[in-house]
Amino acid sequence: MPLKRIGEFGFIKKISRGCLIRPDSIIKAIGDDAAAFTTDPARVSLITTDLLVERIHFLRNAISGFDLGYKSLAVNLSDIAAMGGTARESFVSIAIPEDCPLDYLEAIYDGMKDLATKFEVNILGGDTTGSKVDLIINVVVHGTIAREEMLCRDAARPGDIIFSTGYLGDSKAGLHLILNNIPADSAEWRNLLRAHLLPVPQLAQGRFLAQRSAVKAAIDTSDGLSSDLGHIAEESGVGAVLYADKIPVSGDLKEFCQQFNFDPVEYALSGGEDYTLLCTVSPAEAEVIAADFQKKFKRPLFRIGEITAGKEMNIIFPDGSSSPIASSGWNHFKDE
Amino acid sequence: MPLKRIGEFGFIKKISRGCLIRPDSIIKAIGDDAAAFTTDPARVSLITTDLLVERIHFLRNAISGFDLGYKSLAVNLSDIAAMGGTARESFVSIAIPEDCPLDYLEAIYDGMKDLATKFEVNILGGDTTGSKVDLIINVVVHGTIAREEMLCRDAARPGDIIFSTGYLGDSKAGLHLILNNIPADSAEWRNLLRAHLLPVPQLAQGRFLAQRSAVKAAIDTSDGLSSDLGHIAEESGVGAVLYADKIPVSGDLKEFCQQFNFDPVEYALSGGEDYTLLCTVSPAEAEVIAADFQKKFKRPLFRIGEITAGKEMNIIFPDGSSSPIASSGWNHFKDE
Repeated sequence: MPLKRIGEFGFIKKISRGCLIRPDSIIKAIGDDAAAFTTDPARVSLITTDLLVERIHFLRNAISGFDLGYKSLAVNLSDIAAMGGTARESFVSIAIPEDCPLDYLEAIYDGMKDLATKFEVNILGGDTTGSKVDLIINVVVHGTIAREEMLCRDAARPGDIIFSTGYLGDSKAGLHLILNNIPADSAEWRNLLRAHLLPVPQLAQGRFLAQRSAVKAAIDTSDGLSSDLGHIAEESGVGAVLYADKIPVSGDLKEFCQQFNFDPVEYALSGGEDYTLLCTVSPAEAEVIAADFQKKFKRPLFRIGEITAGKEMNIIFPDGSSSPIASSGWNHFKDE
Repeated sequence: MPLKRIGEFGFIKKISRGCLIRPDSIIKAIGDDAAAFTTDPARVSLITTDLLVERIHFLRNAISGFDLGYKSLAVNLSDIAAMGGTARESFVSIAIPEDCPLDYLEAIYDGMKDLATKFEVNILGGDTTGSKVDLIINVVVHGTIAREEMLCRDAARPGDIIFSTGYLGDSKAGLHLILNNIPADSAEWRNLLRAHLLPVPQLAQGRFLAQRSAVKAAIDTSDGLSSDLGHIAEESGVGAVLYADKIPVSGDLKEFCQQFNFDPVEYALSGGEDYTLLCTVSPAEAEVIAADFQKKFKRPLFRIGEITAGKEMNIIFPDGSSSPIASSGWNHFKDE
């Protein structure tokens, strides 16, 4: 059915179903001039927003509506996770070109609702409008956190241990498969695709880290390890060393790099959109926190390096040689 | 200077200046994974968002960057005004095509900052990215209000008097001038252009109305009087009558309609983007509130009709004849 048959208000009615997942504290959801809700007075508000544009962030013929909707919300939940917060409300603006079928649009909202349900986040409002060519999605997430628990980029201190909550580089490998039309005909390739299309926001991991005062700075790996660690270094006025053999590379990525002749460490450093959390931890508490993390999540908290007093970031290889790290992650507009 | 010379992070640094207008209660502004701020625990949070797409909402060669930025924020502030709230924080996502000069982009932020400064609203975060063809702007505004003061669309009751805080139809006339390349060579035409390009969000008027318990429902006139009153009628389960000779038509619009042979009442009914507030008020208090409004704002609160018990909306003409009102305001996607 074409969208114009039901019109803007019919469309809003259709997609509004199932958007109110956690009705407590909600005064007005979709349908008024603004959404209205109460927040815990003991906590501060967090707001993050991400804009996804067709042919820049995704190709409509290469991603299902479900995956697109899921990912649009996931990248925002990841930002709340990186602050250590609890995600609460989301707001979705969408600009729809005429050739975009209603099925695809409904699938977008299905993908969002699927993830929203998992993390008890409401879809509380937004905007729907037309677009000449490209499908556009902007998602906003409101979250909360106790002020003293907040994890910021500027709190890393020399001597802190750097950790990642998960493998790095898988998402870039998944994107490579998509862009080169390589069929996902093995469990490994499917895992890499999944890492790219359906990243799991590390909200529980963010909460775990935020509740430990020894955890200093945090960021999510959206631009790439080198670039995101660079943000922490710049904001904190520090440097960093990474150990090449400690950077967590999945078995799937090793297999992929072997087959296509890529360097897995380079992939892990430069590949964005993994949406793990990078954090820095006071050295005295680092081991205990890593052990507690392993116990709680049944996955390692990967220790990958240390914060240094300089301004440089370097990577040290197993043979003892080292190399400066360029912030080679994703940067819109910049000449390659 | 081309945008790619300074890159995404250079651009963010450039436009960040002057974004923090009211630093109290702000913990993290632009530059971390999310913005963080405290809110008054006695008030509830309001969030609204609007997405503006090139060639749908604006033509880049027909609007200055300043006006575009101003208006992108204004339409969101208007939604907070319509709830009776105080606008506090804003978040700007922008997707920039390669051919968009840095000057134009900076002017967009100048326009936003100009309006943000007037209403003490921070620009606290957002997202910047690329776009293949169209310039895209999504603005989110966070506001607050005491729960018992909130003005919603569903609170109109039969017998309520319907008011508008300003003239209707001017914005549509301004748009007509732009789309038909009619030069703004008179004070009247310039006023109409201004109504379209630089609408003043009725935040003070919204606060005035919210503080009076006799004011029931409210909405801003973004889609057009007939459509926006239709939203109140539908959400409240009521009908309405409007008086054709009471609908506030500016001298500028009368002049315009005379010259181009349009019906000013039709223009006022169907023209969107005036961003006045429509509200409904208990009849016993209507006169006092209108008089207080006039005293405070030195402008009339225009009494335009009444809420009825039926479901229909009708307009009554001076000769006693009447006609049903169709919700003929703006509706994206719908066939004309």
